[in-house]
Amino acid sequence: MARTVDHNKPASIKDVAVLAQVSVPTVSRYLNSPERVSREKRDRIAKAVKLLRYRPNPIARALVKERTKTIAVLSTNTTLFGQSQTIFGIEERAQKAGYTLNIGVLSPEAGEQSRQRIQSILDQNPAGIVLLDYDQVSDDAFAYVNKDLPIILIAGNRKSDVTQISMQERDGGYAVTSYLLGLGHKTVYHVSIPGGAGGYSRLAGWRSACEDAGVPAPAPIKADWDPESGKRIGSALGRKPEVTAIFAGNDEIGMGIIRGLNDVGRRVPEDVSVAGFDDHPIAKIWNPSLTTIHQDFFKAGEKAFDLLKTEIDDVDQGRGRTDDWNRLVELPGHLIERESTGVPRS
Amino acid sequence: MARTVDHNKPASIKDVAVLAQVSVPTVSRYLNSPERVSREKRDRIAKAVKLLRYRPNPIARALVKERTKTIAVLSTNTTLFGQSQTIFGIEERAQKAGYTLNIGVLSPEAGEQSRQRIQSILDQNPAGIVLLDYDQVSDDAFAYVNKDLPIILIAGNRKSDVTQISMQERDGGYAVTSYLLGLGHKTVYHVSIPGGAGGYSRLAGWRSACEDAGVPAPAPIKADWDPESGKRIGSALGRKPEVTAIFAGNDEIGMGIIRGLNDVGRRVPEDVSVAGFDDHPIAKIWNPSLTTIHQDFFKAGEKAFDLLKTEIDDVDQGRGRTDDWNRLVELPGHLIERESTGVPRS
Repeated sequence: MARTVDHNKPASIKDVAVLAQVSVPTVSRYLNSPERVSREKRDRIAKAVKLLRYRPNPIARALVKERTKTIAVLSTNTTLFGQSQTIFGIEERAQKAGYTLNIGVLSPEAGEQSRQRIQSILDQNPAGIVLLDYDQVSDDAFAYVNKDLPIILIAGNRKSDVTQISMQERDGGYAVTSYLLGLGHKTVYHVSIPGGAGGYSRLAGWRSACEDAGVPAPAPIKADWDPESGKRIGSALGRKPEVTAIFAGNDEIGMGIIRGLNDVGRRVPEDVSVAGFDDHPIAKIWNPSLTTIHQDFFKAGEKAFDLLKTEIDDVDQGRGRTDDWNRLVELPGHLIERESTGVPRS
Repeated sequence: MARTVDHNKPASIKDVAVLAQVSVPTVSRYLNSPERVSREKRDRIAKAVKLLRYRPNPIARALVKERTKTIAVLSTNTTLFGQSQTIFGIEERAQKAGYTLNIGVLSPEAGEQSRQRIQSILDQNPAGIVLLDYDQVSDDAFAYVNKDLPIILIAGNRKSDVTQISMQERDGGYAVTSYLLGLGHKTVYHVSIPGGAGGYSRLAGWRSACEDAGVPAPAPIKADWDPESGKRIGSALGRKPEVTAIFAGNDEIGMGIIRGLNDVGRRVPEDVSVAGFDDHPIAKIWNPSLTTIHQDFFKAGEKAFDLLKTEIDDVDQGRGRTDDWNRLVELPGHLIERESTGVPRS
């Protein structure tokens, strides 16, 4: 046993065999069907595997490469409108290209739990990753993602060295706020979605529109994802006569706010204008139908898959990283005026 | 080279090495990183692999076995409330047990396309399958599923030799219809969801409640998944003065119907009572809040994973099929009375 082990490269199956004093086929048999290896040799091999930190994964990965055409999709609460629509868009394109989706739901308990969740997804060797960076939890999760893999981010603050689809939410927040101010409202109250209040957010756009118009921006109020929280906030705001215009961080919250306003006798839009964000399918049939910023989540999902596929092709064809790995693709929303907003009563 | 090859068992890596006149580690290297093997040896190994029909996959599968703990989830449109909630419930339990979800979306174009989609999911060796049997497309898809794998069906008509979770939708349809008739309405109109109108459905429960009460059941009207279709149907029904009670196949359609009724001057519940199904999060903040049947989709998802896990354990522990593979688990909904229903004006 005069062989030396080169510590500069990962241990090979041969290194394990040498250290365990067994043949290479025995190690292979141990990995494949351990019950066919004697207990004594099994113990020696297990010890050698541990000592050398031998990882059979690269071989396994190469062998199974053609079979696991999966895309890892990382997202918080997949039942929310934006998340579910985006995933549907990714799936639609993935399906045509012969890929399937492996979904990893990021729990609100971030940190170590997110890290473990992401690791269990990455352990399955996806061809690439799409991270729906729609709130603080998913934004934090970016730290745990393997940056060597093809990856696309949707939304979130701009990161370096990654291709990202911007939904231009800041511009959307700016547009809807400016629209309300343009109708003659003295200011616009903002009820924000949970998490994510970075420079690119809806909230930042609202604040900036107030600043540019020279009107005071009242302290934003934070809602949670349940529309019931919008209803409570709507009733509270409805009791303040100075409130005449509200921009809700999403449509579900906006619809809850309208209900809450109605409950305390304020009519929409006669007494208070309310605008939402996203263009939820129910927003257009709400009574009154909801003014909102239309966001094309489905298209963002489709686009994310297409961008990811060019990175995957770079890897498959050994081209390394092209410019496609660091792009910013803009997918702006647009204002849809409906019945829930109007000029203030003088 | 006096070794003989035993044709009764699959060729091993050692057989390949012997035939190619190279060492086992060289074959391993060839499989792992062929560029590190000389062209001449590469050709010999390739020939030996072909001649012996050597399949490295079983080894690879064994190596990755512990890592690919995935559950295949088959569903139509994953953005719909019931589907997305159920998947969220499955994920929640799967995550705790160290499994990840592989999502296969079944397109409305059933038949061959569904078969291919399911095959590409099954090719990735999931530990088990959950089929969300919520409409005709998913019901048809059951034919293409590999019955050897652990599988759980949620909803749908009762199949044989499979464990199935019944949401008792027929009972729900019966309960809500009986409730409306009990308020004094002469009959109840039904606006149904697309697909699935089997014996266990909401529609069947409605029809049966009408029959049992001895009232005529008007021809059901079929909506599509977009709440806008509910709005159109609501306006049409609102123009018929004899319509005083409507049972909608789901809450989104129900909310659309209320909006459509309002648009033609009919008030809810004063002129027309409207009930939905599912208990969508927006139903409780709608104005008026919507009477509905609460369905616990999240719990159905959790339960499906738990049941699937017992089947997976049977396989892992070589116990074969126990009774757990052919159970019917009932998860009944319940009526929630809200503001959208009331006694008819005499």
